[in-house]
Amino acid sequence: VECANGQGIVHSRMALIDRYRAVRQFSEKICETLEPEDFVIQTMPEMSPTKWHLAHVSWFFETFVLKVHLPDYESLHPQYTFLFNSYYNAAGKMHARPQRGLISRPTVRNTYEYRKYVDTMVLKLLGEASERKLEVLAPLIVLGLNHEQQHQELMLTDIKHVFWMNPLRPVFRKEKPNAASSSAKLKWQNFDGGIYSIGHEGAGFHFDNEGPRHETLLQPFALASRLVTNREYLEFMEDNGYTRPEFWLSLGFNMVKEKYWDSPFYWERDLGKWGMMTLDGMRAVDLDEPVCHVSYFEADAYARWAGARLPTEAEWEVASEEVPVEGNFAESGFYHPAPARESGRTEGLQQMFGDLWQWTQSSYSPYPGYKPVRGALGEYNGKFMCNQYVLRGASCATAKSHARRTYRNFFPPDARWQFMGIRLAKEIS
Amino acid sequence: VECANGQGIVHSRMALIDRYRAVRQFSEKICETLEPEDFVIQTMPEMSPTKWHLAHVSWFFETFVLKVHLPDYESLHPQYTFLFNSYYNAAGKMHARPQRGLISRPTVRNTYEYRKYVDTMVLKLLGEASERKLEVLAPLIVLGLNHEQQHQELMLTDIKHVFWMNPLRPVFRKEKPNAASSSAKLKWQNFDGGIYSIGHEGAGFHFDNEGPRHETLLQPFALASRLVTNREYLEFMEDNGYTRPEFWLSLGFNMVKEKYWDSPFYWERDLGKWGMMTLDGMRAVDLDEPVCHVSYFEADAYARWAGARLPTEAEWEVASEEVPVEGNFAESGFYHPAPARESGRTEGLQQMFGDLWQWTQSSYSPYPGYKPVRGALGEYNGKFMCNQYVLRGASCATAKSHARRTYRNFFPPDARWQFMGIRLAKEIS
Amino acid sequence: VECANGQGIVHSRMALIDRYRAVRQFSEKICETLEPEDFVIQTMPEMSPTKWHLAHVSWFFETFVLKVHLPDYESLHPQYTFLFNSYYNAAGKMHARPQRGLISRPTVRNTYEYRKYVDTMVLKLLGEASERKLEVLAPLIVLGLNHEQQHQELMLTDIKHVFWMNPLRPVFRKEKPNAASSSAKLKWQNFDGGIYSIGHEGAGFHFDNEGPRHETLLQPFALASRLVTNREYLEFMEDNGYTRPEFWLSLGFNMVKEKYWDSPFYWERDLGKWGMMTLDGMRAVDLDEPVCHVSYFEADAYARWAGARLPTEAEWEVASEEVPVEGNFAESGFYHPAPARESGRTEGLQQMFGDLWQWTQSSYSPYPGYKPVRGALGEYNGKFMCNQYVLRGASCATAKSHARRTYRNFFPPDARWQFMGIRLAKEIS
Amino acid sequence: VECANGQGIVHSRMALIDRYRAVRQFSEKICETLEPEDFVIQTMPEMSPTKWHLAHVSWFFETFVLKVHLPDYESLHPQYTFLFNSYYNAAGKMHARPQRGLISRPTVRNTYEYRKYVDTMVLKLLGEASERKLEVLAPLIVLGLNHEQQHQELMLTDIKHVFWMNPLRPVFRKEKPNAASSSAKLKWQNFDGGIYSIGHEGAGFHFDNEGPRHETLLQPFALASRLVTNREYLEFMEDNGYTRPEFWLSLGFNMVKEKYWDSPFYWERDLGKWGMMTLDGMRAVDLDEPVCHVSYFEADAYARWAGARLPTEAEWEVASEEVPVEGNFAESGFYHPAPARESGRTEGLQQMFGDLWQWTQSSYSPYPGYKPVRGALGEYNGKFMCNQYVLRGASCATAKSHARRTYRNFFPPDARWQFMGIRLAKEIS
Ligand SMILES: [Fe+3]
Ligand SMILES: [Fe+3]
Ligand SMILES: [Fe+3]
Ligand SMILES: [Fe+3]
Repeated sequence: VECANGQGIVHSRMALIDRYRAVRQFSEKICETLEPEDFVIQTMPEMSPTKWHLAHVSWFFETFVLKVHLPDYESLHPQYTFLFNSYYNAAGKMHARPQRGLISRPTVRNTYEYRKYVDTMVLKLLGEASERKLEVLAPLIVLGLNHEQQHQELMLTDIKHVFWMNPLRPVFRKEKPNAASSSAKLKWQNFDGGIYSIGHEGAGFHFDNEGPRHETLLQPFALASRLVTNREYLEFMEDNGYTRPEFWLSLGFNMVKEKYWDSPFYWERDLGKWGMMTLDGMRAVDLDEPVCHVSYFEADAYARWAGARLPTEAEWEVASEEVPVEGNFAESGFYHPAPARESGRTEGLQQMFGDLWQWTQSSYSPYPGYKPVRGALGEYNGKFMCNQYVLRGASCATAKSHARRTYRNFFPPDARWQFMGIRLAKEIS
Repeated sequence: VECANGQGIVHSRMALIDRYRAVRQFSEKICETLEPEDFVIQTMPEMSPTKWHLAHVSWFFETFVLKVHLPDYESLHPQYTFLFNSYYNAAGKMHARPQRGLISRPTVRNTYEYRKYVDTMVLKLLGEASERKLEVLAPLIVLGLNHEQQHQELMLTDIKHVFWMNPLRPVFRKEKPNAASSSAKLKWQNFDGGIYSIGHEGAGFHFDNEGPRHETLLQPFALASRLVTNREYLEFMEDNGYTRPEFWLSLGFNMVKEKYWDSPFYWERDLGKWGMMTLDGMRAVDLDEPVCHVSYFEADAYARWAGARLPTEAEWEVASEEVPVEGNFAESGFYHPAPARESGRTEGLQQMFGDLWQWTQSSYSPYPGYKPVRGALGEYNGKFMCNQYVLRGASCATAKSHARRTYRNFFPPDARWQFMGIRLAKEIS
Repeated sequence: VECANGQGIVHSRMALIDRYRAVRQFSEKICETLEPEDFVIQTMPEMSPTKWHLAHVSWFFETFVLKVHLPDYESLHPQYTFLFNSYYNAAGKMHARPQRGLISRPTVRNTYEYRKYVDTMVLKLLGEASERKLEVLAPLIVLGLNHEQQHQELMLTDIKHVFWMNPLRPVFRKEKPNAASSSAKLKWQNFDGGIYSIGHEGAGFHFDNEGPRHETLLQPFALASRLVTNREYLEFMEDNGYTRPEFWLSLGFNMVKEKYWDSPFYWERDLGKWGMMTLDGMRAVDLDEPVCHVSYFEADAYARWAGARLPTEAEWEVASEEVPVEGNFAESGFYHPAPARESGRTEGLQQMFGDLWQWTQSSYSPYPGYKPVRGALGEYNGKFMCNQYVLRGASCATAKSHARRTYRNFFPPDARWQFMGIRLAKEIS
Repeated sequence: VECANGQGIVHSRMALIDRYRAVRQFSEKICETLEPEDFVIQTMPEMSPTKWHLAHVSWFFETFVLKVHLPDYESLHPQYTFLFNSYYNAAGKMHARPQRGLISRPTVRNTYEYRKYVDTMVLKLLGEASERKLEVLAPLIVLGLNHEQQHQELMLTDIKHVFWMNPLRPVFRKEKPNAASSSAKLKWQNFDGGIYSIGHEGAGFHFDNEGPRHETLLQPFALASRLVTNREYLEFMEDNGYTRPEFWLSLGFNMVKEKYWDSPFYWERDLGKWGMMTLDGMRAVDLDEPVCHVSYFEADAYARWAGARLPTEAEWEVASEEVPVEGNFAESGFYHPAPARESGRTEGLQQMFGDLWQWTQSSYSPYPGYKPVRGALGEYNGKFMCNQYVLRGASCATAKSHARRTYRNFFPPDARWQFMGIRLAKEIS
């Protein structure tokens, strides 16, 4: 059997099983330092309790693999289908999203039992399936694993929010990283205009929204060699960036006034100095690190202030063509963006993958000819193509095996709690 | 030393220490069946997580006893003062009430450690205090214990709400009670008009809002011998009580329409039959039990429909004069109101104490000459004397040693999650 | 025929007709300075457009007099019943209160035509009714006129709000009053405790909530000889009254913080000096005038700061026994409270009637034995007896013929836009 | 002097003056049937009182022409700048948009005086300006006139909402149009893929968001020959279109459930038949007319149901190349879309201009190289490029001289009160 995953081809049953085990285990590894109470909390409607994430990704395998392909499969609890369906209308009614934090049972222990139960069944199914059946199962398993990797990233960003909301400011990751030394100089890399192809093509795994591959016409443009740093963003702040409407989209400036934004999310001024919440706890803002936890509105305003603009997603994808998919990913357990280091190379784009997702100016919309899959899985992506903006790259909370050049991440323009940063672009003539 | 508690006089240091231990242990006994996750949840702004209750009552001893009377006392954590102050402005800033469920740390284990730490310190203080000092400490300790008993009742009503909000409908109390047989006939007991004295007087413990004792003038009135039953309340419902504005206060009818009320809280119609949530889980409505979890609005509307009215708190207190403070209290672990049994007595008031708090028509307001205590403890009661209504008696979730004839419980007129019921009154000529 | 009105007895058909004409004309006189646009606006849900008031009081006559007693009566428009019913469920469905300002038609001209139409029909009915019929009609007419007088006061307070919300701050009343010279010294008048009778009795008109007359028991008390002045209230403000929680009811202090209250309503600080909105436009705060437009919360907090309390409504009514119903009423067209003048009398209560309604500490609740009228008119008062507080006296916007010793005005504790002030009381031993 | 307007070139001072007079008069002509009260009302935050529109467009001339180019110009009232600035932060503080309906003064008469005052000054300025000066003024005047034309359309759509909110359902336009006979058959017109240029270029007036003209790459596509009709849309409704999530964007389906949408806006079912509100009052839905007052969400869901999609704005503009800018515009005074008539032509696009704005699937975003004007006028368009969707064409409420092939209208995806309809597109291979 051959089936697609994010890194290439799964060559055999064993490879599929190994990958299943690895991804599932990583979810639980992420939770090692958590107390049972930490798994329960929902601190804003946009985020979910860790316990819910762990159960929901299992529900995904249950719903799209086990219930379809394992005869007489019964769930561990008849209500789990209701509780752990996120948004798939075709899969039945579901618990209201903003109420996910009102549910103390199933407990964390119950949740792990549920995971184990699903794992047993999936592994049994994979172990016993005919080769023919495996060809059907493999893409579903790989989709489920990519889905779980998405939720791994959310688990990290959501638990960060949980700890932030607590005046005790708990610490998620005990070991502190080495302090960064300095940040590379920002250079501009030029790209020619012309007709380019973007979007996914070929055997590897991809989400449906990444296709079909198609041609697009670009004007000449330049892209910044690295992400915007805290030092640069502070200049914008000190130039009264947050109170000058001329830099802002109208909705963005309303948001600034309504929510009293005056800095990136997770920043806090203490005795005149800026600190920030990280998964290591509170610490001083490191000026060399890329600015993080900014909304589309802030990214766009900063770019305007800086005399530049955000890239389109097509520009970003074209520019990434020569860049290897390497960087500061979740596997390192660092969970925080790192400064761009001055490299020997005199040119080239840094921090394209890992560190931070990068806001593009592109509204999240279907590629020409895009058709969602039939059935419940068609609800995975397509129905969210409204009032959201595309982010490209990947972050320090993304698994490396999940990152991809054609990956289209998307969030509403006021979202800030993900690992989101800014890469500038500009026109050239 | 002699000091006041709810049931009489604490005769000695040992008695005080015993009582402290007993009340503190009862709080923990209540939580025996809970999982750590259950302690964390806040399912509506009016209720609090169990964990918070357990910590807050300890904070009370810390703030009003240890920090004042134990030299060099230091709290287990500098932020607990902020997190566990409920509403005492004079005791410093406090965490926002509706955010109590957003705090996973301190964990349940930390909370129990905090309780143990406070207990150690309080018991040390009580053990070593001079007799003179003990005279100062005893009333504070007794107040703190009564405060903890109030929160014990809230822990029970709040956890009921937590389990109700969960589609799995967990069960708090495993052993099921015997089914009730029948309900006593409702009789009317008459009381003469005249000048009566109400309010607390004498040595026993009482809250400041129960005094000063004072004279009041009553017209002749009659009081129902028992609480209104589910059977009677269902007649009101089936007579379209919830859709006929003529029975309702204007605010009440607005609430009915806005919240789609059509039955007492915790009732749920399933296949045409009414079930109800109890601390034993969901079960059929027992027609002989007193109707429970009704708001002031519903109690008042029911009374008007029944051609009667709610009693004033003065009427209730006067009528209770000859009734012993006995009944179905929290100590029994039954945690649900029981039917009034047909007694040998041809007259007399049943269910005055225990079973359910009884709505009176009296707005919660100061007695003539009422003066709150000086300092932070003055915020205990007086500042809430607005837009609330008095309930009298006690409930199946009240500790017996906490019940009192002069006790003034109070809630806003739309509150329903407490163990609240209806006793009718009427004018007589 | 003999029928009741606020000032005594209507002796004849002609007297009734004259009174009808006088009250109806006064409503229109109040509106003389308004432009058509002014009649349309609803600036907060609690107030109503002037146009709506003018139509609603006519609807009242239409509904309770013409439709009942005039055979074949037809309204000018079939939808007026829906649009101008305020809150009488028994009189059919009604337009939502907060949407009264979304209705441009009927126009002001249409509204006056409606009034004229109703007047013609009522006067025809009164002119032609038999004496026997007149006995039935008279109390309804008098009720309708008292109802209209209530709305006249609301028209004045509501248009004041309309003009306040407009940055142009229009002027309602062109002629400016003479400046006040000084304010009388505050003295305390003592009253004995004992059994008193309060509530209305006898032939004169009264609302149903003023009865039945009944006995009540009072402790000895003292009442302030005049209203609290702006000068006195400013002392409270300058003593940080609005930021010290110890003076406030809990709900009140929440309101202060939520709404940023730091002064009475309609006050505005300009260049360090306090100005205030009046129906004459903006002008400087006159320190000798009674403080006006304060909520129950502010009145209560001020009283606590001043070491006093608000009177109960029974105390107020007993104290008013010897005071003539005279003062600064709407008929003068002054529409603003005036300073208490130093009178020759060495004692006696000033400003009991006219100037400002006076908050009492009494929750608005039924008198013992109170029964609302049967039918739709039973909805006039009784259903509002919840979460409101009684005000006594009358104001500069009340018609003199509408004021009464037993009058029970009532508003929620956060209401400020009426002409409301503070009279202090205290215990005496 | 030569200056740009929507229809070509203004050849002379006199032409400019004539055009100024014509556009300004048309605003007042629109209001002929309104009563003063109609001008005042704001029935939802998105719309504005007619009075406000009339004043705001005058403020525009005052702010960008008179205050800049007429020495010593003084406004009629110092507060008008505050009241009638819509959203230009660079032009100073402004009155809150949702409060525009709380302002009764300036009255309608005052507003017309303000218009007259501004007209006098503008005409004086235009009459006396040097030729050189006129070259500076002309583009500003033409911009102001186009701005006023935009508000003319809003006046019509906003007054429709005002009348809709009134249970009396007033009639704006007295003369009823002739009933439509039938609707043309829907045909598909094919367009080749390739590189096209879109955006405005050349001498005529255009808004800044229409440029710069640039190349874009299109796949082959087909466009429907006419708008979707009520008959077709009813089929979608009767196929349970509003309750089947598979057709909807996620945000759209949430909106449907939250707002109980089950038909286009302004539709009302009466006795089982669909009626609709028009500027002629309520009448039966005409099945041959184009469906109107649908949101982006509904347009998108309908298209998906119909097996098609919405066009991109580039597709629409390319397709419009050969279509004359003719149709059912505001000048006719019909103010309602008309059925597409069966034309002699066997092919060609109907209803491209006039009748209804047509939702495209394109998010409103800047064209490559777009730069807003410097200064306050730069706030005209650019800052709204977020979470809005582009509509193309023009409507029955648009002035013909205002319509343009490159015109980019935009509204949030839930907006329905404009004259908005649906034209389908689809891929072809
Ligand atoms: Fe998911
Ligand atoms: Fe407490
Ligand atoms: Fe009324
Ligand atoms: Fe405008």
